[in-house]
Amino acid sequence: MPVGTQATVKTQSPDELEQLGAEIILGNTYHLYLRPGAELIEKAGGLHSFSGWSRPILTDSGGYQVFSLKALNKITDAGVEFQSHIDGSRHLFTPENVVEIQRKLGADITMPLDVCTEYPAAHKKASFDCRRTFDWGKRAQAHWRESPGDQVLFGIVQGSIYEDLRAQCLQEIVDLDFPGLAIGGLSVGEPKEDLLRILAFLAPLLPDDKPRHLLGVGTPEDILDAVFYGIDMFDCVMPTRNARNGTVFTRKGKMTLKGAIYADDFRPIDPDCGCPACRKFTRAYIRHMLAVGEILGLRLTTAHNLYFYLKLMSDIRVAIAAGKYACFREARLLELSGGVDQLF
Amino acid sequence: MPVGTQATVKTQSPDELEQLGAEIILGNTYHLYLRPGAELIEKAGGLHSFSGWSRPILTDSGGYQVFSLKALNKITDAGVEFQSHIDGSRHLFTPENVVEIQRKLGADITMPLDVCTEYPAAHKKASFDCRRTFDWGKRAQAHWRESPGDQVLFGIVQGSIYEDLRAQCLQEIVDLDFPGLAIGGLSVGEPKEDLLRILAFLAPLLPDDKPRHLLGVGTPEDILDAVFYGIDMFDCVMPTRNARNGTVFTRKGKMTLKGAIYADDFRPIDPDCGCPACRKFTRAYIRHMLAVGEILGLRLTTAHNLYFYLKLMSDIRVAIAAGKYACFREARLLELSGGVDQLF
Repeated sequence: MPVGTQATVKTQSPDELEQLGAEIILGNTYHLYLRPGAELIEKAGGLHSFSGWSRPILTDSGGYQVFSLKALNKITDAGVEFQSHIDGSRHLFTPENVVEIQRKLGADITMPLDVCTEYPAAHKKASFDCRRTFDWGKRAQAHWRESPGDQVLFGIVQGSIYEDLRAQCLQEIVDLDFPGLAIGGLSVGEPKEDLLRILAFLAPLLPDDKPRHLLGVGTPEDILDAVFYGIDMFDCVMPTRNARNGTVFTRKGKMTLKGAIYADDFRPIDPDCGCPACRKFTRAYIRHMLAVGEILGLRLTTAHNLYFYLKLMSDIRVAIAAGKYACFREARLLELSGGVDQLF
Repeated sequence: MPVGTQATVKTQSPDELEQLGAEIILGNTYHLYLRPGAELIEKAGGLHSFSGWSRPILTDSGGYQVFSLKALNKITDAGVEFQSHIDGSRHLFTPENVVEIQRKLGADITMPLDVCTEYPAAHKKASFDCRRTFDWGKRAQAHWRESPGDQVLFGIVQGSIYEDLRAQCLQEIVDLDFPGLAIGGLSVGEPKEDLLRILAFLAPLLPDDKPRHLLGVGTPEDILDAVFYGIDMFDCVMPTRNARNGTVFTRKGKMTLKGAIYADDFRPIDPDCGCPACRKFTRAYIRHMLAVGEILGLRLTTAHNLYFYLKLMSDIRVAIAAGKYACFREARLLELSGGVDQLF
């Protein structure tokens, strides 16, 4: 799902996102709580109405942002005290009020406040964070159940790179019978082999009847691997953030469009791509847009990358339905490893 | 015509511009000559092909930019020496090479190099600039005639706020039989009454069979007045630049969308406007976009302002065709003077 941190997927309109094939987008509770505020969005009728996006929305718990934006002030059993990265004002997130905030935001899928363990972390620290994440998940669920409404609340599994912690946390979350599971604390700096090891370890333990979301992952390669280990849903800023740096994804690898070699390259980014940027514009034109700082350049690279990711997921679904996912994954990984310079 | 300085009308795609009703856009020769360069655009097949805009394009002479961007180094009868505002490199514009540059850019309507007299200027200085503008216009036309192609070259009338200079310059340019006339050097800081006085003075002198372009003007009020004095065509950054500052135009005056009073205002910018921003988004949402620096906000305010200007021109054409322009102008000026706060 494309990431729409501040009630917009950067550079794109809701209509464009639909045309690109987006079926759900993510909003960041932390950012929306600070600006424009959950009350304002509630007054607007919720995020869908406020932003003009009518398909599903998932909001995260805000926990990851409090940690990653260095906004953290103090963490206790009660919750997380943090300072706004905008004006330094002090705030408190608790398992209960984070449910309330997301209720006001009006997302379809919500997340309980969790502790995203940084990497590296000792086993003892990871275990402690796991315990707190579980306690908070339980409190969030209890609070949510007081007035469940139309939203669903997923459970979050932490545990860093430790298999025993992951197994224990998963079992406890499964026992609480959330309607979906989110796996957090991966792709936070750990080696790729640890990501794959944890996913492979968890794969046989995941309940068959619950959707599985892998938070904040990842590269096209990561997604191909994670789906192999049973992951259904992803959110990641990679397609949109890379686009704004001028990096575009293709089936044959990444391309850095700011490069001088593209100055007089009048081919589309990817001749085989059906996205709005590739149907109408050349590498040379998009490079010019990026070089002179024109917004249209960011719009086009973003549209291309989102289309690429959404098409990848669509292709994955087709391959799974055909019972050919293992081969599909190998073939796509091979193609991605080729490197764009050799192939275009 | 919307201004597309760097081969894009800021924030908009070519398709969107068409949908907004744009029939022609302007490109800036000075900027395009520096980046990406006229040769590259020629290699791409010209500006239309390079930028994906298939309707007409007008390119200016670059003269105004050389003066207004303080890039000017030396001006002689031969041409203008200037330094790039980007890297300080030295360049020379002559009447002849500016024709060649615009030939490579491939615009439909081109302009000869001129001297845009700054305001205020003494009569002697304005007279001298007028003479040079005329000499350069003649040289540009002679050079253009060596291989005219499909492009047309307009003539430019200068003369600051002096009626005698304006009359003389106009007559000389008319005698050269350019296919269209551009009036330059207005809206450069002079009082509004001087703009109107010069336009009123020139009105009876303008040839009936040539389109008249007023360079770089203006506000909705200026346009209503200038059309009254016989102007047919305009270009101005006002709709796009104001949009990026959060100022939007309505029939009832301007609105500064960043204002706190719009934070929870869930109406469209203008309930009677049919633009893409007003059909789908609220003031509160657009204000949020602008407040947090999201590109979608700039896209929406720009789309609204361009739609407003293009609709104004369209309404003007209807009123002229109906023989009711004088009343139309009075009614619209009255409406615009009301001020948005009273009326929305």
